[in-house]
Amino acid sequence: MKTILIIGIGAGDPDYLTVQAIKALNRTDVFFLMDKGQAKTKLRALREVICRRHIAPGHPHRFVEAPSPPRDTQPADYRACVDELNAAKQAVFERMIADMADGETAGILVWGDPMLYDSTIRNIEAIAVAGTHAIQYEVIPGISAVQALAARHKIPLNRIAEPVLLTTGRRLAEGFPADARSVVVLLDGEDTYRQFTGQNMEIYWGAYLGTADEILIAGKLDEVVEEIHRRRSEARRKHGWIMDTYLMRRA
Amino acid sequence: MKTILIIGIGAGDPDYLTVQAIKALNRTDVFFLMDKGQAKTKLRALREVICRRHIAPGHPHRFVEAPSPPRDTQPADYRACVDELNAAKQAVFERMIADMADGETAGILVWGDPMLYDSTIRNIEAIAVAGTHAIQYEVIPGISAVQALAARHKIPLNRIAEPVLLTTGRRLAEGFPADARSVVVLLDGEDTYRQFTGQNMEIYWGAYLGTADEILIAGKLDEVVEEIHRRRSEARRKHGWIMDTYLMRRA
Ligand SMILES: C[S@@+](CC[C@H](N)C(=O)[O-])C[C@H]1O[C@@H](n2cnc3c(N)ncnc32)[C@H](O)[C@@H]1O
Ligand SMILES: C[S@@+](CC[C@H](N)C(=O)[O-])C[C@H]1O[C@@H](n2cnc3c(N)ncnc32)[C@H](O)[C@@H]1O
Repeated sequence: MKTILIIGIGAGDPDYLTVQAIKALNRTDVFFLMDKGQAKTKLRALREVICRRHIAPGHPHRFVEAPSPPRDTQPADYRACVDELNAAKQAVFERMIADMADGETAGILVWGDPMLYDSTIRNIEAIAVAGTHAIQYEVIPGISAVQALAARHKIPLNRIAEPVLLTTGRRLAEGFPADARSVVVLLDGEDTYRQFTGQNMEIYWGAYLGTADEILIAGKLDEVVEEIHRRRSEARRKHGWIMDTYLMRRA
Repeated sequence: MKTILIIGIGAGDPDYLTVQAIKALNRTDVFFLMDKGQAKTKLRALREVICRRHIAPGHPHRFVEAPSPPRDTQPADYRACVDELNAAKQAVFERMIADMADGETAGILVWGDPMLYDSTIRNIEAIAVAGTHAIQYEVIPGISAVQALAARHKIPLNRIAEPVLLTTGRRLAEGFPADARSVVVLLDGEDTYRQFTGQNMEIYWGAYLGTADEILIAGKLDEVVEEIHRRRSEARRKHGWIMDTYLMRRA
């Protein structure tokens, strides 16, 4: 039997790591690294800080690195593209698992919380179900970008007793959701919030949350929309990549 | 100036505590405790474990305890009742803040993440805005019940690229939300999931997540609905209180 630990490391600040995650790091024999694109160097640096700071000096461990399968950025068929990407990722994990010795424990460090817009749980579950390798796995939650956003703006996510929708930029582009007063948007490469001016919205926006490059902007959407767009474009140009998320709701 | 740290401690397992929260505990001079009802003893015990385990032996600190204002369990006007409760809580926090020495730091340990269905951020913000006391405050995120649910069931919260609605039992009773394929329900005292049988739903249910009393049940709603209801009633009777949450979606 091989064990896989899917470890949420939080969405930015190395201090977001939980005690449970630290214990998981110290149970890990081999870390699987699979980073993508331009954010790679930053993410790798964060992982190194985390491992160096929290793995006990006497605990032997090794790293196995594989490139993340490339992603078509403007696919004709989004779902098919995601499925293909997931199949490719699963194949990469399978090869890394095949190389583990029996009885060993592998750790996969996942940005934020593995339960939110991340394919790792699905990939590992598919491998477990396929049965080619005898594996068991555990999921360790982490502080997500949604939580970093709320904490850094010092706001509750929900209005009193009201629901909150977590969604993607792609979905938001189809219109403001009917059933949710508060909407948190992730994975928005298109500044979709700009479609909602003139509708008495307020926005809490954050980029590179929990890191030294963090930017926070909040206010009536109509009043801050240009500032967010400008700061976002500048930051993206400067760093070569951006991670941002926002909460939007009728004021 | 007085400093207030609103510290998320995670929703059950003491190991959900983050490094950031541990640092916050060790900056705190006075802990404000305000627990309610029957869950009180269990929550107090968890807080004691956390403080004992993570506060450095040399760090002086004290506890100030106040009873949480009682809550009308079947209010005629839900919003008015919540507003009243919040005003009462705010008054309790104000008295505790008044008793702090200038320059001191207070810590409020919040179950799960303070951003989710919790009034502490609103209470402290209202006190800061009122200006009677010169305070500054910080929010430290914690692992929420939603994350504990997903991690313990080892599932992603969202279907691929789809939205997720976080809502309350009270809201769900008004009907299954139109815009969300996946719905996570908190604060459901009425087994509201039982209204959705015969609609090809699946459910992932968890009670006392992350604790020694944890119960996990998952499956097609029609097949597990009676089991959940029975286990929930039994557990509630046995412990005198229950915390449970669930993810529901069309299969
Ligand atoms: C593929 S999703 C993964 C989310 C992650 N599993 C989590 O729990 O935060 C990536 C998206 O999360 C958001 N995100 C992640 N980290 C962020 C950060 N530090 N600041 C702002 N947004 C972030 C962005 O919206 C980004 O497009
Ligand atoms: C007032 S809300 C507070 C939520 C909290 N701030 C959080 O982040 O988890 C309380 C609700 O959270 C859920 N909950 C909290 N802890 C839980 C646990 N350990 N197991 C199951 N549900 C829990 C239940 O639905 C409960 O009614």
